[in-house]
Amino acid sequence: MTNTLPFLDGEQLLEDLETLGQIGRAPEGGLLRIAFSPADQEGRRWVAQQMAALDLQVTTDAAGNTIGRYPGTVKLPAIALGSHTDTVPHGGLYDGALGVLAGLACLRALHSANQRLRHPIELINFTAEEATMAGGTLGSYALSGLLNPAIIDQPAWDGQLVRNHLQQAGIDPTCIQAARRDAQSYAAFLELHIEQGATLEAEGSPIGIVEGIVGIRRYLVTFHGYANHAGTTTMARRQDALVAAAPFITTVREVAIAHSIVGTIGKVTVLPGAPNVIPGKVEVHLEIRGLDETVLDRAEQQLRQHAQNIHVTFLPLSNKPPVQSDPRLLATIADSCEALGLSYLTMPSGAGHDAMNMAALCPVAMIFVPSQNGVSHSPDEYTTPEACVNGARVLLATLLRVDEVV
Amino acid sequence: MTNTLPFLDGEQLLEDLETLGQIGRAPEGGLLRIAFSPADQEGRRWVAQQMAALDLQVTTDAAGNTIGRYPGTVKLPAIALGSHTDTVPHGGLYDGALGVLAGLACLRALHSANQRLRHPIELINFTAEEATMAGGTLGSYALSGLLNPAIIDQPAWDGQLVRNHLQQAGIDPTCIQAARRDAQSYAAFLELHIEQGATLEAEGSPIGIVEGIVGIRRYLVTFHGYANHAGTTTMARRQDALVAAAPFITTVREVAIAHSIVGTIGKVTVLPGAPNVIPGKVEVHLEIRGLDETVLDRAEQQLRQHAQNIHVTFLPLSNKPPVQSDPRLLATIADSCEALGLSYLTMPSGAGHDAMNMAALCPVAMIFVPSQNGVSHSPDEYTTPEACVNGARVLLATLLRVDEVV
Repeated sequence: MTNTLPFLDGEQLLEDLETLGQIGRAPEGGLLRIAFSPADQEGRRWVAQQMAALDLQVTTDAAGNTIGRYPGTVKLPAIALGSHTDTVPHGGLYDGALGVLAGLACLRALHSANQRLRHPIELINFTAEEATMAGGTLGSYALSGLLNPAIIDQPAWDGQLVRNHLQQAGIDPTCIQAARRDAQSYAAFLELHIEQGATLEAEGSPIGIVEGIVGIRRYLVTFHGYANHAGTTTMARRQDALVAAAPFITTVREVAIAHSIVGTIGKVTVLPGAPNVIPGKVEVHLEIRGLDETVLDRAEQQLRQHAQNIHVTFLPLSNKPPVQSDPRLLATIADSCEALGLSYLTMPSGAGHDAMNMAALCPVAMIFVPSQNGVSHSPDEYTTPEACVNGARVLLATLLRVDEVV
Repeated sequence: MTNTLPFLDGEQLLEDLETLGQIGRAPEGGLLRIAFSPADQEGRRWVAQQMAALDLQVTTDAAGNTIGRYPGTVKLPAIALGSHTDTVPHGGLYDGALGVLAGLACLRALHSANQRLRHPIELINFTAEEATMAGGTLGSYALSGLLNPAIIDQPAWDGQLVRNHLQQAGIDPTCIQAARRDAQSYAAFLELHIEQGATLEAEGSPIGIVEGIVGIRRYLVTFHGYANHAGTTTMARRQDALVAAAPFITTVREVAIAHSIVGTIGKVTVLPGAPNVIPGKVEVHLEIRGLDETVLDRAEQQLRQHAQNIHVTFLPLSNKPPVQSDPRLLATIADSCEALGLSYLTMPSGAGHDAMNMAALCPVAMIFVPSQNGVSHSPDEYTTPEACVNGARVLLATLLRVDEVV
């Protein structure tokens, strides 16, 4: 199989990363290719030009997703590759961009070798993956048919409505659902992405095979006490909501470790919030993430139980279920790594990705490459050139195998 | 001694509380006699009229303090009584007002009995005791010579400068230090006040004898972690500043209980403060209050020690030393309670009062009466009519004894 792997031009991939990384660069550091901004559109146009240079049929759908299609030899659903080129404010060079440009490198390899696969291939540059537009993955939501149309009237990161951002980019906000594709469109979806965590680096693994994308459950947990004078109220008579909340913070960590998930309290509001008033109310935003719904259920149950032992309300805010990767695709990625002599680690993705939505249409899997120090969404985001090229080669090798097995 | 106690008109005292309680009443509940406001000035004028009706010499000093002087039979320093009639926004009927009107009731009793004491008596209605004017006790700061003149350029509760509030009340902000009295002015200062805590109620004691006013030390304690992605960062790799802060919250309570002081974290800032980002920094405002400096030193040392065991900075913000009541005055109050058949509890004041500043000029002591449910600074603030009259009678009996012993 490795014998038939066409040459993937790693130098060109790295040059592409640098070139795209010049678009939207902020003088104070990082990239400002915020979804639908002029810089984002300029980046998308540049990617579309690279697609066109490989003779792909380039289309833009009703949600602004850019799709480059490389024809196959047999009338089959497409194998899709892709990710996104929008960034968070002051984001880095690799998050999203690597997956799109590695897909481009795969198609360039096939195009240069004049090699067609049985399946057509679609390289998708999704719109608005980052959470700048009221939650993110807007393009893949639309394409997979999962879009909540109410999103256009929600505020974006800058307080403007999503609707306005779409309009400024020339996209009709009332038509984005027309981007929906049907279940016969795709045979599989593969996404290469930086890990955005430090597990691969810590384990010395060049490749992560993503067994699934974690489910995310969010809760508002409110501790009720009684606000009173911090000088005249004895310790014995206090009902201090913050003192009640403190052991819960520790418990969240313990429960997360015990269930091998992650659990975070990232936002805390202490009311009334004056140095000389005993806290009467404390609101904490709790989030747990894990790949297994039954484990999340158990962890939630323990946290809820702990909350019931004190004077607390425990309000679920949202529940995004986990998405499992396709076992056959996982095995194919593993075979590809072995064929290329690259060790790998099977791991969950703790962050959401476009692949999560594509799972509604077809089998999906993701490939991770190491993030230095686990940093992402930052100008300091960095993945070594070697790791980028390794990821692209695994993507290409997997694409060729998937073409045979699905 | 009780035989010679002139008649104190409790009915008139209660009527005065009701009458003053009509001035500055907010339609939505509580009083709005915020320092220097028209309602506050109206309240002060009404009190001055009651003073004048008892033939007191009424003066207003450079800081706006209203002083009613009842002459004595011997050329001696005055015995001062008093408190304040300004309120917090939506404050109650008793905080401050009881001390002023009980002083008035004492002088009315002497006036009606045509009785003079050896010492002149000054009834002081201090300005701006509440923290609405950049910290509070502005009038007693000025009168006792402790005023920091920079206060006039600090913002008041509403964002306006204190200077502007003074000017609107017809007080020259550059002259308030001229209110300073010298050390020969007063032989003693006595203040009756509601407890603002629930200790007397819980113990069933009608009278609290205030052995001192607690010292207040404030600190900014900052926990340093590393902000990171709440999904992709494993529990093992986290440096969560909030998880580090949680045991400290519990420790503050434990240390306070162990040292019989109070300790409060009333304000917490979690940064960056997003539900999906691990807290990178947590700032807590810590306050400890106690009557004994060496105990406060030990508690501070333990808290600082705890903080040093984790990655924390421990920054002192302010340190108001405790003020001890005069032991002879305390004994005199106790004698008065016994003579009146009222049980009492010796206790610290957890809140600051004008007496705290007057201690710079002369021996001071305070008398507390119970606050229902310990509530104050609220429209729900309540002290029973019986408790108010008990307090005034103890004040009068003490005044007569002090006149003999100092």
